[in-house]
This record gives sequence, structure tokens and C-alpha cells, in this order.
Amino acid sequence: MTQLSAPGRPLRPRGKLLQEDARRHHRALLLQSLFRDGPASRADLARATGLTRVTVSDLVGGLVEEGLVEELGARPGGRVGKPATLVGFAPDAADVVCLDLSADGRVCGALVAPTGRVRLRRSAAVKGRRGDDAVALVLRLARDLVALAERPVLGVGVGSPGVVDPGGTVLDAPNLGWHGTPLSRALHERLGLPVHVANDANTAALGEHTFGRADSGHLMVLRVGTGVGAGLVLGGALLHGHGSAAGEVGHVVVDEDGEECACGRTGCLETLLAVPRLRARVDGLDPAARADALAGTGRRLGAALAPVVGALNLRHLVLSGPPDLLDGPLAGATADALRRRLMPVVGDDLVLRTSDLGEDVVLVGAAVLVLNAELGVS
Amino acid sequence: MTQLSAPGRPLRPRGKLLQEDARRHHRALLLQSLFRDGPASRADLARATGLTRVTVSDLVGGLVEEGLVEELGARPGGRVGKPATLVGFAPDAADVVCLDLSADGRVCGALVAPTGRVRLRRSAAVKGRRGDDAVALVLRLARDLVALAERPVLGVGVGSPGVVDPGGTVLDAPNLGWHGTPLSRALHERLGLPVHVANDANTAALGEHTFGRADSGHLMVLRVGTGVGAGLVLGGALLHGHGSAAGEVGHVVVDEDGEECACGRTGCLETLLAVPRLRARVDGLDPAARADALAGTGRRLGAALAPVVGALNLRHLVLSGPPDLLDGPLAGATADALRRRLMPVVGDDLVLRTSDLGEDVVLVGAAVLVLNAELGVS
Repeated sequence: MTQLSAPGRPLRPRGKLLQEDARRHHRALLLQSLFRDGPASRADLARATGLTRVTVSDLVGGLVEEGLVEELGARPGGRVGKPATLVGFAPDAADVVCLDLSADGRVCGALVAPTGRVRLRRSAAVKGRRGDDAVALVLRLARDLVALAERPVLGVGVGSPGVVDPGGTVLDAPNLGWHGTPLSRALHERLGLPVHVANDANTAALGEHTFGRADSGHLMVLRVGTGVGAGLVLGGALLHGHGSAAGEVGHVVVDEDGEECACGRTGCLETLLAVPRLRARVDGLDPAARADALAGTGRRLGAALAPVVGALNLRHLVLSGPPDLLDGPLAGATADALRRRLMPVVGDDLVLRTSDLGEDVVLVGAAVLVLNAELGVS
Repeated sequence: MTQLSAPGRPLRPRGKLLQEDARRHHRALLLQSLFRDGPASRADLARATGLTRVTVSDLVGGLVEEGLVEELGARPGGRVGKPATLVGFAPDAADVVCLDLSADGRVCGALVAPTGRVRLRRSAAVKGRRGDDAVALVLRLARDLVALAERPVLGVGVGSPGVVDPGGTVLDAPNLGWHGTPLSRALHERLGLPVHVANDANTAALGEHTFGRADSGHLMVLRVGTGVGAGLVLGGALLHGHGSAAGEVGHVVVDEDGEECACGRTGCLETLLAVPRLRARVDGLDPAARADALAGTGRRLGAALAPVVGALNLRHLVLSGPPDLLDGPLAGATADALRRRLMPVVGDDLVLRTSDLGEDVVLVGAAVLVLNAELGVS
């Protein structure tokens, strides 16, 4: 935790602060290089980052002391002269406490390594808790995970349902009874750790971008569950949108002749794609009829998403949800419909697939929220 | 132009370069503050940018010497003590040579002030020139404008049709016979000035963002002409997309039962919205039937764009093209259709309007390309 100075008295003169700002920026450059590209020598790092050898050695020394970077010995291979010593991002330096509040009736948590590996899981039933009671439940789960950590905890990352503002206030999550609930502040005050909260679909998009196979920096993750929501990483950065509601596509009307929606309108994307609707449409059908029905849904999904994929020139469209529904005819028909509707320059390069990260995509994305904010890596 | 050092011999030691990097960054912070927020005292600037008073005074001194910033005298109003001296961005310090290559059969150019004011215009007929001949025509127009400038020329900005890569190579502009044409390099080599090229719709989006009333940082400009294309500024930054083709929505199929398109498919957005198609559909109709037909087009446009506006949580959607077609029933019906199809949290805040900048939107956007790259302002 940061030690604050006495009121009205700055901790350090301004010039010093600016130097520290540059130092923090350079430190993040080095960590990012080791995180994305793997072990490197100090000379490699100087070349990759444009920093001087002296600055690199100085900063690497500090990072080794902190335990975030480790010495890995001489570079393998028989070059002439003194072999370079490699350093690498230390995967066991820290844990991240990660929470996924988007599951139906449960809050799920995990300790996640900076490599994205889930070390340990815990969860708790919501049992109808709402408002402050739901916040208290989340706090308990986070506290349990902090207590279970065997390494320093870098911070707490949370993927929450609903619209979340940049300060970590949940503007609207009806299922948990949260309306303008300052979740990030509440957890930070009680845990004394850095806390970062984002919408679950946005968190999933960060997870795919950093730990999945969708690292192009131009991707949309469509989460299909009880509801439907998307997260967008564009040009490598998470899109928030004007009112923090980017990706909220579940209640966009995509078919005016579609089914009635709980929101009172007709033909929202959720009526096409939400899991309960899909199950109701295909359960009990024989395999051929089931495949037909899922392909029909895929065709309509492709038609609805073509303007989005085209306007954004996306590289990856990732479907995240039950594989028995999404994998196969639905994903195939969505991809076909998109290609038929897009210019070759966009459609040919598009990769549509289901997420390999499965249900963990929000948890590992929550780790990215923390890695990004605290270390500058993603 | 930059004076290059002898091969293999760095011009300056690294540490010095890093300091210059910081200096350039701080200089851009000051210019951006004066550009966006208007005149300020040195103390105001220190507060706004977080730089020290000493750094601000030093940098402002340099900017006044260069002529980019001017002393404006004492702040009006009767405060006690010595009144603060204001400095401001100098609108007459420089000209930007701006080119719009998206018009039908003409290349249009202008000298544009850093305030976005068009000082002087020139244009030339294309007369079927293609490939290198078209590049030569553009070069001649740019040269004429450089010769006409009465102030230092900050650089050359170009809005070109087609997909343009980040290095200013036009990947594909069939009307000018350009395929992989290094337009930026060709102009830079012959003019000896900084040159920045982008797609015309992307350039228009920058123009609206900086000089129009769509300064939210979350906007799409839809250009409606012989073809249809969009430009997106998201989170304040121009979106390029995976293959530099963001905004290329003209040949996205939006209606499988629509009209046949020149590209060989059916129901592309261009068949709905391109000016020749619109005119063919409404010319000769009586006013009521014409309004009906335009409103029908607007309804279909709103349906096609709803997933885009929803996914991106846009604040501004700007239609740019002939006002007699776009203003009125078409824009009104598009807005209605969007609101009906979007969640209130997104739809209520959406502003849909036609561009005030008219046909100048690409020219002033081309100035933003240069201001942004050369001074760090936008």
C-alpha cells in the first residue's frame, strides 16, 4: 500500500515525480518485453526497448530484487566469446486474486499466476443475496483467496455482470441488485489491495487477447450464457465506449420478426442466442434437425454481426459459452454467413472459433486487468 | 528534413535521445492543452499538464521562438497582485497543404490553417489519369499549394479513396488505378515535406472529431457518395483495423433480398445508400413519395447499423454527403430505427446528424493528420 504524505505537503518535488514516472514507464516496457517475448539478455532488452544498457541493467536489478524477474543463466548454444545471461519474467513471483461474478447463482474465484495458470479455485453460492449482501459475499470470497495465497498478491481482478464504469463502479447489474455500486472502492477499502473491476465480457476479451489464441489485437469475444454480451479489444486496447457500455449487444434488436424478449421488445440478440432460448429450440430434436436449427441460428447471427466485423475489420471473433451448442453447426454457419456478407479483404482473414479457455476466460481476464494496471503488461 | 548521421555512427548518445523524446512529449502536451482548451498562463499549463513551472517556461519559450505559440498579454479581469500573462496557440503560424482525392473526377486541395479554416482552394480534373499519371497530378497540385503558401508549411495531409496502410501506401483504389501505390513516399521524396495519407472516410472522421461538433471521441462518420465508406474514432483514436480496412462497410451485405451490386453480390450497403442509387430511386417522385422512399432507406440503414452503434456504444453518428438526400426523412428515420433497436443506455445518448463541415470534412481532416503527427495535437 502507498504511504500517503501529510495533507497539503507533496511527498516529493515535481521534478523527482516526473523522473519516477519515466522510470515506471521504462520498467513496464521491460516487463512487457519479457512477458510477451520470453527470456532475453540485457542487451536484447536494450535493443527491444530503445533504452540504454545502463538503464536496462539498473531496472532489471531492481526487478530481480522485487522477485518479478529472475536470472536464468547463460544463453544455450555455443557462440564465441562470453555467453549472454538471460533473465525472464518470474511466473511464481506473485498471485492474482481473480473473481468471476457472471455465473448463474455462484460467485467464482481463483488464484491465478501471472502466466494465466489457475492455481486454485473457490466459489460460493449467491442464494439470492443482493445489493450490500452480495458485495459482502464477494468480499468474503476475495478474503479467503488472499488468505490462501502462498505468494505476494499483486491485486484483485473482478469480472462483473452489467455496465461497469472506468472507476470500477457497477452502474447496473440487476441480477445482483447493484445500481451504482462502488464495488472496486468497497473491496479496496476492506482488503487494502489494488482492485480492478470490469464487465465480464470485456474481461473475457482481455483474457483471450493475452492468454488465448486471439492475440491479433483486433478481436470480439461474444459471451453466450443466460444473457449475451460482447467484449472488444481494438488496436490492442479494450474498448469502453461513450457510456462504458461497449459490447452491450444482448438487447440490440436484430430481427423485428423475432421472439419476444424479457426487456419488452422483439427480436433482441438474446432471443436468438441466449442459452435457455437455444436449449428450448433444440432440446429433444434428432441430430439432423438439431444441426439444422443451430445452423439457422448461426446464419442469423452472421447476418447481424457482419456490419460490426466489417466496420471494425476484426481478425478474431471468439464465441464463448456451452460448446455443445456453439461448436459445430452454429459456429460453422456463422462463419459462412459472415464470409458471404463481407469483402474478401476482411472476410478472408477472419478467424471465427470458440474459446479454448472455456469457463476460465473471465477469471484469467481478471488477472489481465491487474497485470495491466499494476505492471503495464498485457 | 532530418539530417542523418554517418552510417553506423549514432548522432547522439542514447541518454540524450531519451531526454529529447521526453522533451518532444512534453512539448506536445503543452500544444495539445493550448489547442483544445485555448489560451492559458504558464501556471495554468503547469497545473493542466503536471509539468514543473520551470519546464513549462522553458518549453513555451521555445514554442514562442518557433512561432507556434504567441504571447497574448495580461489575463483580463481585476485580480489582486500581478496579473498572469496568457499564451495561446498561434493560428497564423503555419499552413497545412491538404488534399482530398475522393471527389468524382477531380482532385481537390487547400491551404488549411491549424484552426481548421480553409484559406485557399485549388483543384484539378483527373481526366482519366490512372496509376503513375494520377500520382503526378496529385504531386503537381501539392506543389502549387506549397508555392502559394505565405506561411511555413507544416506538412501535407491526404485523404485518399481505398484502403491505405499505416505507412501511407494505397493498397487498393481502383478509380485511380492504384494498387500498392506508395503515395506518401512518392510525395515526400519530391516535396521534402512530412506527408501523411489516410483513407478519405477515416480522414473525415478525424475532421469531425477535431473541428466538427462530434468531439466525444466515440464517433462514426458515414460518407455517402459514389460509394459508401465509414471512418471510426473510438476512445479518441482513429481505428485502423486488422488489415487497415476498418470502416470499409460499402460492400457489407445488409439485405440479401436487395439490389444487385457492381461487386457481383446482392444487397451491399452501397446498393441501399450510394448517391446514384438514391437518386435513381427518388428522382421524379412527388415530395410525399420522395420523403417516404428516403425514410424507407433510413429505416433499413438504422437496422443495419444498430449492431455497430450498440457494440461500440457510439455517441455520434455523422452522415456526410448530399444534404438534399441525407438531411430530413432519411436521417430522421435512421435515428428512429436505431433508437427502437438499441438499449436506452446507448440509444438515448446517441446523436445522429449530418456533417456541418460539408464537403470540406476530408480537407480539414487531412489537416488533422498533419497536426496530429507533427505537433501531437488533435
